[in-house]
Amino acid sequence: MSPSNSSEASKPLIFSILCKAGAIMKILLTISYLGGRYHGWQVQKNAVTVQETVQNAIEKITGKRRDLTGCSRTDAGVHAVGYCCCFSAEDGTDLFSLPKSLNAVLPSDISVLSAREVPEDFHPRYSAKEKEYIYRIYNSYQRNPFEEGRAMHYRHRLDIAGMSAAAEYFIGTHDFSAFCASGSSVKDTVRTVSELEITKKNDIISVRIKADGFLYNMVRIIVGTLIQAGEKRIEPERAADIIKSRDRTMAGPTAPPEGLYLNRVIY
Amino acid sequence: MSPSNSSEASKPLIFSILCKAGAIMKILLTISYLGGRYHGWQVQKNAVTVQETVQNAIEKITGKRRDLTGCSRTDAGVHAVGYCCCFSAEDGTDLFSLPKSLNAVLPSDISVLSAREVPEDFHPRYSAKEKEYIYRIYNSYQRNPFEEGRAMHYRHRLDIAGMSAAAEYFIGTHDFSAFCASGSSVKDTVRTVSELEITKKNDIISVRIKADGFLYNMVRIIVGTLIQAGEKRIEPERAADIIKSRDRTMAGPTAPPEGLYLNRVIY
Repeated sequence: MSPSNSSEASKPLIFSILCKAGAIMKILLTISYLGGRYHGWQVQKNAVTVQETVQNAIEKITGKRRDLTGCSRTDAGVHAVGYCCCFSAEDGTDLFSLPKSLNAVLPSDISVLSAREVPEDFHPRYSAKEKEYIYRIYNSYQRNPFEEGRAMHYRHRLDIAGMSAAAEYFIGTHDFSAFCASGSSVKDTVRTVSELEITKKNDIISVRIKADGFLYNMVRIIVGTLIQAGEKRIEPERAADIIKSRDRTMAGPTAPPEGLYLNRVIY
Repeated sequence: MSPSNSSEASKPLIFSILCKAGAIMKILLTISYLGGRYHGWQVQKNAVTVQETVQNAIEKITGKRRDLTGCSRTDAGVHAVGYCCCFSAEDGTDLFSLPKSLNAVLPSDISVLSAREVPEDFHPRYSAKEKEYIYRIYNSYQRNPFEEGRAMHYRHRLDIAGMSAAAEYFIGTHDFSAFCASGSSVKDTVRTVSELEITKKNDIISVRIKADGFLYNMVRIIVGTLIQAGEKRIEPERAADIIKSRDRTMAGPTAPPEGLYLNRVIY
């Protein structure tokens, strides 16, 4: 029975003993991926996922099957610039050459940026202080082959001032129930958004949002709502009412996955 | 027998009569494409090309087969931001709705940006005053999924000052034989480079080159030579000797196609 991160909670004693015996080290990988070809992070039956692809690469170079624990489930089509995940490896694993070895067997749309050792009690999800997402909107009448699958295409001109004014209402600690996909089983729906910034460069509008945690589809529903402000279909102040309502039906639609990037995790 | 651009030279009279009769108009399309899936611009047997794909789209929306004349042959894997091509259509074709109609049937990696009427004697290749290419180098030790197929990946740090110093020798009117792929049948190998600029932003080095014309693989061989200066394997002044040599074997290797973008054609 090999120690596994996915069932860590149930095996602290075994893990701890192995660590003390010097048999195990916990490794944090930071990876980038283009999500278009994947059904999200988490292993699924009958679908290719990023987790499974990286696990296969680890098995290929170490000869051993290791379970990866990720910092979040990303949805199908969502990208990551700095996704964080952990696995337990034999002590003495060469962290300097590990990214290069993994990249040699990984497909070109996934890349390991770095590998470092973390303490035994480190958890890529629960140890995170904050996460930062970026949502990219390609705002032009014209279709752009270079942004296909990498940004949401919005054809009509969006009002950045209106979007930025609406964005301010999200900053702070709120119950974000109105921005959580229905069917989510999360009980505590209070999150603290520390930063929400909208910038435009050429035809690309970037929405950068940082929070201590995110509900299911929260970024994409916030973006869908900000777009309504950009369309002048709602007044920016309306954002405050929608938050207060805690009613998903009051918020805007869920923006599509191809514009979303998990940018970084702050530990 | 329908008028066709590809055999225009042999049919000036027919074309001219049809134009005067108001039956024909010549349309210039500006298109963007991501070249990765295509075997270049020009129609080939047993390979999918951009020309064929756009011709199929025109046939689909007009019900008639039209030959397209392009501004240049781009190689397999090369991209275009503003490629120009012409075809003859029935007079009265709605130029405003044409891009939208074509984009509705084109694959997502090709997009028509604009359509406008040009004079009968306009030729997308021979009427061009200058063309501008951009070559993108992703210069980082790490692999980047977002630049895969969109930039040449060069792992070791390149010296921008050395590349820029070497670049200056290319500006002006020279016999560029040393920068022409062997096997090319072109007789006049003199070209005038009006601009050659190297910039770096984050990990992306952009080489922008503008000239009155380019020999086969000229941009990619110039970039391969500039990289040698960036590696400090040759002194920048060496570029002058290589140009003078008119010997392909003296220049650097041909940089790979995925970094090359036909940026615009100046008429």
